Amino acid sequence: MAERLIVIGADAAGMSAASQARRRRPDLDIVAFEKGNWTSYSACGIPYVVGGEVDSLEDLVARTPQELRNKQRIDVRLRHEVVSIDPVAARVTVRDHVHHRELQLGYDQLLIASGARPTRPDLPGIDGESVHGVQTLDDAANLLGQARQSRSSRVVVVGGGYIGLEMAEAFLRWGADVHLVEGSDQLMSTFDPDMAAPIRAAVERHGVVVRTGVQVQAFEPGRVLTSDGPLEADLVVLGIGVTPNTEMASAAGIELGHRGAIKVDRRQRTSRQGVWAAGDCALSFHRVSERWQHIALGTVANRQGRVAGINLASGYATFPGVVGTAVSKICATEVGRTGLNETEATTAGFEHVSTVVESTTRAGYFPGSRPITVKLVAERGSGRVLGGQIVGEEGAANRVDVLAAVITAGMDLEALVDLDLGYAPPFSPLWDPVVVAARVLLKQV
Amino acid sequence: MAERLIVIGADAAGMSAASQARRRRPDLDIVAFEKGNWTSYSACGIPYVVGGEVDSLEDLVARTPQELRNKQRIDVRLRHEVVSIDPVAARVTVRDHVHHRELQLGYDQLLIASGARPTRPDLPGIDGESVHGVQTLDDAANLLGQARQSRSSRVVVVGGGYIGLEMAEAFLRWGADVHLVEGSDQLMSTFDPDMAAPIRAAVERHGVVVRTGVQVQAFEPGRVLTSDGPLEADLVVLGIGVTPNTEMASAAGIELGHRGAIKVDRRQRTSRQGVWAAGDCALSFHRVSERWQHIALGTVANRQGRVAGINLASGYATFPGVVGTAVSKICATEVGRTGLNETEATTAGFEHVSTVVESTTRAGYFPGSRPITVKLVAERGSGRVLGGQIVGEEGAANRVDVLAAVITAGMDLEALVDLDLGYAPPFSPLWDPVVVAARVLLKQV
Repeated sequence: MAERLIVIGADAAGMSAASQARRRRPDLDIVAFEKGNWTSYSACGIPYVVGGEVDSLEDLVARTPQELRNKQRIDVRLRHEVVSIDPVAARVTVRDHVHHRELQLGYDQLLIASGARPTRPDLPGIDGESVHGVQTLDDAANLLGQARQSRSSRVVVVGGGYIGLEMAEAFLRWGADVHLVEGSDQLMSTFDPDMAAPIRAAVERHGVVVRTGVQVQAFEPGRVLTSDGPLEADLVVLGIGVTPNTEMASAAGIELGHRGAIKVDRRQRTSRQGVWAAGDCALSFHRVSERWQHIALGTVANRQGRVAGINLASGYATFPGVVGTAVSKICATEVGRTGLNETEATTAGFEHVSTVVESTTRAGYFPGSRPITVKLVAERGSGRVLGGQIVGEEGAANRVDVLAAVITAGMDLEALVDLDLGYAPPFSPLWDPVVVAARVLLKQV
Repeated sequence: MAERLIVIGADAAGMSAASQARRRRPDLDIVAFEKGNWTSYSACGIPYVVGGEVDSLEDLVARTPQELRNKQRIDVRLRHEVVSIDPVAARVTVRDHVHHRELQLGYDQLLIASGARPTRPDLPGIDGESVHGVQTLDDAANLLGQARQSRSSRVVVVGGGYIGLEMAEAFLRWGADVHLVEGSDQLMSTFDPDMAAPIRAAVERHGVVVRTGVQVQAFEPGRVLTSDGPLEADLVVLGIGVTPNTEMASAAGIELGHRGAIKVDRRQRTSRQGVWAAGDCALSFHRVSERWQHIALGTVANRQGRVAGINLASGYATFPGVVGTAVSKICATEVGRTGLNETEATTAGFEHVSTVVESTTRAGYFPGSRPITVKLVAERGSGRVLGGQIVGEEGAANRVDVLAAVITAGMDLEALVDLDLGYAPPFSPLWDPVVVAARVLLKQV
C-alpha cells in the first residue's frame, strides 16, 4: 500500500507542502482535510475584496480543489474537520460536515497546517452575528454577506494592527463611517510610538475616527460598549490578533511554545516523530532576536510549508527564519518594518541607538515626490543594523526590503551608507532616505 | 597664511568635497573654479526639464554660488577655467572668462573634480549649432534655448544609453517626432541583449523610432546622414557616452587609467602628492569585477567627493566602490541593473549561469499590477549572485536595490531565496519576482 501523507488544512502552508511532496514523491497518497470551503488562497487580499478594489473572493484563490485534485493528485476534502490526532496509532479522526459523519484515517506522515483564528475576547455579546473576525475566506464571505445585506454604514473596527487598519480602509471605500478602537496607547504595536504617531495621523486624515487607550466592554445589537462610552455599529470587525489552532496538537502531546504555537525545528519537525507543522499554527525563528516567535503571515506560511513538504518527502531543506518584515498600505499611506523595533531590541538584550529622519520618495523637485519618514535602530558600539521602520506615501514601503537584506547580512551602518543604490530623480533623492538615516545614526553609535 | 584648498569644478564631486572640508577645517581657505555658470546641480534632472515635468533648470540647483559663499565660505568663481596645473610649484593657471584675463593661484591641496563632457565623434558637421551634448546645465540651457527658438519638431538622438533614452522621452513629451540612432545592435549596452530587447520594444511602443546597427556619417543643417540614409532633424542630441576632462591632469603628470579617467586610490588620492580627484573625471573600484572603471554617475561623484573632502581635511574615509547599480525611467517603462551582466561576468573571469523570469509588480489580482522581467546572473558552482537586470513598469526598478545589497554582501542564490521580503498585495506577488528568478536559477548552479 502507498505511503500516506495527511495534511490538516488546505491553505498556504498545507498546499505548499503538498505540492512539494507530490513533486518529489509521485507515489505518495496525499489527503488534505480542510474544515472550510476554500483552498490555497491569499487571505492578505481579503480587505481589497471588501473595499471593492478586487472583484470577488474567488480572485484570491491560487488553486481550486479541482486543480489540486486533477493536476497534483492531492485528495482535498472540504468541510472535513480533523478533531483529533492519535500519534501512537498514527491516525486522525475527522468530522465530515458534508455527510455528517465521522471517519478515521491512518497516516505515515502528518502535516499540521491548521492555521490560526481571529482572537475573540471573552466579552458579553462577542458571539453576536454582527461581530466578525477576518482570517479565512469563509470569515470574509460571512462578513461581506452581512455587510451587503445590512448595507452597513457604521463600522467599528476593534484593534489597530495591520488587519484592523486594512479593514478600516476597506470600509471607508465602502462608504461607511469607520471607528477604530484600540486598547493600548498606539496603533500598530510592531512600530515604535514615534512611528506609530504618523501612522495614526495618516489614518485619521483618511477619515477613520481613531480611539486609543479605549477598552471594549460588550457588544450589543447596533452598538459597541466601550470604556469611553457606546459606539453605534451595524458591523464589528475584530483585528486584535490571531490564536493558533493548536488545541488538537496539544491534546496529542505535541509541544507548544510562544503564544501556544507549535514548536518546530528548522526542518518543521514537531516533537512527535512523523508529525510536521507549518504556517500560522507553528513558531518561526527570528534571525535577529534569535528567539522562536509566533508570526502569522502568508509568506512565512508558504515558505515553511515548502520546507516541510521537501523534508517529509525525504528531501532536505531548512527554514532559516524571518527578520520580521511586513508592509501594508492604508489608503495613500504605506508602512513597512523589518528587524527589531526599540522595544524588541531591548527585550532581545541589545543596547541600541536610533534615529528618525524625514525625506522624500523622489528627488524633491520631481513631480509626485512624497514624504517619507524612516527610523533606524542599530546596535550601540558595533553599529550593526537591527531594524527599520518606514511610513510614507507611494514608493516608501518597498525600501524595507533593502533593510531586510542589510539586516540578514549582518551589515553595520557604514556598510549601509556605502551601498550602491540606484538613483534617478523619479525613484529617490540623491541620497536614499534609508542612507540618510544611516548617516545620521552613525554619529550616535 | 591660511592653508588653501583649490577645487577644480563646482558641481557634485567638487562641492561635496568642499562642504566636508569646510565642516572639518573652519580655518581652510577654499577656492573653487568653475568654468560654467552653475554650481552643485542635479544633471540627472536635465531630461525632466526638457520634457516639461520640472519647471526650470534652476530647480535642479542644490546650492547656488551665493549659498556656497555665504553659508560655507567657499569662494566659488564662475566662468573661471583652470587651464593648467603645476604640481611642482603647487599652482594652477586660470582663465577668467568674466574679465578676460589669466591668473595664477597656489594651493596646499588640490581637488580635481573637472567632470566629463559628452563624447563628440569626429564627423563632418559635429560642431553644427543644432548638435547638442547634454552633460552640464550650460549644455541643457543651450539645448533648451535652441529647441524653444526653432520649435523643434524633428529630433534625432544619437546613442541608446540612459541619456539617449531619457532625452528621447523628453522630446516625445515636447511633442516632437523622435528618431534614435544606435551604432551597435542593441540599446542600453549595460544590459544583456535579452533584456535590451524588451527595453527597445517599450521605447518603440512609447513612440520613438529606433534604428540600431546604424552609423551616423555626418551632420548637416536640417538632417543627419546615416548608413541607413538621411534623417530630417531640427535638433540632434548626442548620447554616446562621456569623456573625462583629464587632459590638464595628464599634462601635469598625473596618471590616468581606463578610458582616460584619473587613477585614484580608495581615499581619492592621485599619483601626485596633495592632488585629489573625484567624480566623473576619476576611476571607481567595482566591487564585483574588482577592477577600476570609469563610471560617470551623480551618486558616485557625490560619494567620492565626500571621501576626498574628509581626507584632504586630515580626516579618514575610503570609498568602497560601486557594484554598478543604475536605474532609469523612460515613459512608463522602468529599467534597473546592478552587478555584472553576462558579458561583464565573463570579462571578469566568472563562469556563470543566468535566467530570465516574467512576473508582476503586485499580486496578479490587484489593480495596477504591471509586468516585470527579471534577469539574474550567478556564479556557477558557488551560486554567488553576480548581477541583476530588471525591465518593467511602475514599481519594478527599485527592486535592484535589494539585489545591490545582496551582491554587496556576497550572498548566494539560496540566501536570496531565504530573504524575508515584505509582502502585501499592493507591493508584490507572494513570491517577489527577484526571489522567483533566484529559485529558478538555483536549479542551474
